[in-house]
Amino acid sequence: MPQIKSGRLLTDLRRLAEFGAYKSGVHRPTFSHEDIEARRWLAGRFTDAGLEASIDGIGNVFGRSCASGPRLLIGSHSESQNHAGWLDGALGVIYGLEVARAFREDPRTAGSAIDVASWADEEGHFGSFLGSRSFIGDVTDEEIDKARDHNNGTPLHEALAAAGLAGRKRETIVASDTIGYLEAHIEQGDTLDEAGLRLGVVTGIVGIRQYRIVFVGEANHAGTTRMVKRKDAGVALVKLCAAIADRFPQVSGPRSVWTLGAIRLEPGQPSIVPGRAEMMFQVRDLEAVQLQRFEDVLLAFVTEANATGPCAVTMETVWTVSPVLMSQTFQDALSRAAQKHAPGKFIAMPSGAGHDAQILARKLPSAMLFVPSIKGVSHHWTEDTSEADIVLGCQTLADAAEKIALAARGFG
Amino acid sequence: MPQIKSGRLLTDLRRLAEFGAYKSGVHRPTFSHEDIEARRWLAGRFTDAGLEASIDGIGNVFGRSCASGPRLLIGSHSESQNHAGWLDGALGVIYGLEVARAFREDPRTAGSAIDVASWADEEGHFGSFLGSRSFIGDVTDEEIDKARDHNNGTPLHEALAAAGLAGRKRETIVASDTIGYLEAHIEQGDTLDEAGLRLGVVTGIVGIRQYRIVFVGEANHAGTTRMVKRKDAGVALVKLCAAIADRFPQVSGPRSVWTLGAIRLEPGQPSIVPGRAEMMFQVRDLEAVQLQRFEDVLLAFVTEANATGPCAVTMETVWTVSPVLMSQTFQDALSRAAQKHAPGKFIAMPSGAGHDAQILARKLPSAMLFVPSIKGVSHHWTEDTSEADIVLGCQTLADAAEKIALAARGFG
Repeated sequence: MPQIKSGRLLTDLRRLAEFGAYKSGVHRPTFSHEDIEARRWLAGRFTDAGLEASIDGIGNVFGRSCASGPRLLIGSHSESQNHAGWLDGALGVIYGLEVARAFREDPRTAGSAIDVASWADEEGHFGSFLGSRSFIGDVTDEEIDKARDHNNGTPLHEALAAAGLAGRKRETIVASDTIGYLEAHIEQGDTLDEAGLRLGVVTGIVGIRQYRIVFVGEANHAGTTRMVKRKDAGVALVKLCAAIADRFPQVSGPRSVWTLGAIRLEPGQPSIVPGRAEMMFQVRDLEAVQLQRFEDVLLAFVTEANATGPCAVTMETVWTVSPVLMSQTFQDALSRAAQKHAPGKFIAMPSGAGHDAQILARKLPSAMLFVPSIKGVSHHWTEDTSEADIVLGCQTLADAAEKIALAARGFG
Repeated sequence: MPQIKSGRLLTDLRRLAEFGAYKSGVHRPTFSHEDIEARRWLAGRFTDAGLEASIDGIGNVFGRSCASGPRLLIGSHSESQNHAGWLDGALGVIYGLEVARAFREDPRTAGSAIDVASWADEEGHFGSFLGSRSFIGDVTDEEIDKARDHNNGTPLHEALAAAGLAGRKRETIVASDTIGYLEAHIEQGDTLDEAGLRLGVVTGIVGIRQYRIVFVGEANHAGTTRMVKRKDAGVALVKLCAAIADRFPQVSGPRSVWTLGAIRLEPGQPSIVPGRAEMMFQVRDLEAVQLQRFEDVLLAFVTEANATGPCAVTMETVWTVSPVLMSQTFQDALSRAAQKHAPGKFIAMPSGAGHDAQILARKLPSAMLFVPSIKGVSHHWTEDTSEADIVLGCQTLADAAEKIALAARGFG
């Protein structure tokens, strides 16, 4: 069994957290100076580990094993959300590095190729999963030309040029060479932490459907317009939202979530009856049929609101992500390793957040392992995971990687 | 009976609408170049009408009758909302001018003093009823020092200096000399227009209570936070709003209105469960007891929401205006004049909007007359009233003024 070295693992994680350190977390947006420095440091660590290091034209950092034969890819992302945690993404990248090192140090696995990747911009500062999508051939040059930093408007091609990456080739997958993809990540929820569990084997990554629902009524003076004459878009919105809050629990799946994230009333003045109102509403579930069930209920509410009046209601789908199931074979390997290292202390669970694994899964068998987030905190600088759990997760990933790699070479 | 001259009345109204003309309306914010030019023109028209004209240190334009004895004050405001209608305010000012002229031309009334006023900033560009409040002694120099244009931040004292009004005395009421105050205005609602009525005798001006209700929960990731764990401030807000929409009609008075004008969810992102939510809610009624009934229901909802959880809810009163009743004697004079000129075509009604008359009413018997707003439109450049209704309103006001003025001189 490849033995990971906990000191080396934690030292590298702590070192990576120095790039853009912010309180006990990091502020390392994609292609910021700190992010580029961190990627260069990573490439150096890949080289130190005997991997062939490169940074491609979209900022993906690769560490390619010198071993021949079928390759197992392990990775995550190394940039962060703004003023966020030190482990979100970084954990999975350093796990990949440590598993690659442990593989080389164990004669039984030294001949198996572990490739490591840090994908660019999983956090979406410039786009949506730009690095992993580029790797599977899903990003056009036109998309890159148009992309800008959502925070400061910097064009992506300028950011790439400033990082010294202009004109570099973007690497793409050679699926026939590759067994599959593994990604470890902090849970970002409190399922594991609250239940006292130490590992989560991800069954799939939820699908997302996001809607904009718009109500059009008539803006009027709040003092002179009698109640019976009003076409109040805000009241129409509130009634539909209340209907959702009543009805959705009755049609929900066991792990469904739905979120009313934004409301805007126009003109938004206390003394004016709103003439227009808009809401952003999102549903997530691992089952496409459940997402459709929610959508059907929403459509029925919209139809009913239009029939009842007095406002005109329209619903538009603004974002769709299909649910992605993880490889059952890989899940089994992760579960067996988890049972060995943390018997009775792991569960199978869906991921409610998006991850690069959902992109890679379009081309490769893929799977994910979660470690607990203390109190479920993520996207905040207080995000943390105990060192014991960090170490346990990496060894579990290494064991599962061994099973998967050896099986691919016919030794399983 | 003082006979108003419709040609002169309409000509002056049309001329005033040329200052800041915008489409078929006007854009004449308080102390804009156009507003100051209009006030100077008004002062000239007052002089032409034999009145002693002045503009005081807050921009109020006065036309003081040379007649001795008890004085009846008639007025409204001459600035406009942004890109708004040509009659809102202007109508009542030119009515005052025309009634003063008609009084002078009728030997029976020539000895009665009609004073005319155009109050500054009823529309609240810099403050709240600054001109009429200054006149009743309710505006301190400190308030003037602090006031700024809500649109462009210009300090009020700079705007007054630019208008050439710096250092001028602010006129204040001598209540003992004055019989009372009359103000005519467009209705700003559709009660008259829809019912085919031509005049409204205002019974009172509604009171307003405005609340900020804040919901504090916990912001969380919309994908990884299970429904049972959420403290969703947006959902808490929506439920309280839906309860208002259900309950308020059952406890409403005949002319009560209530308005949910603004909602803000924070951080307001589709993929984040809102951790804080805020709404602005306003109630208006002529009866203080009805306002209190609404407030009691709101407080009960807030208490219930806090007891039920999971969010903390607080309610704060951010604005209160007490209901103001109009003088019954003046209302009777207006009703008799209305019955003479538009038999069966007028009603007694409250004003849902605020007017300078509610300020003057603190010191003087006051009353208001409404003319129809076509389709109820106001605060928009399409605002309009038929010429026939404009003329009818002015003659009705002149007749009522005659009754009131003569009664005060013992001729009633």
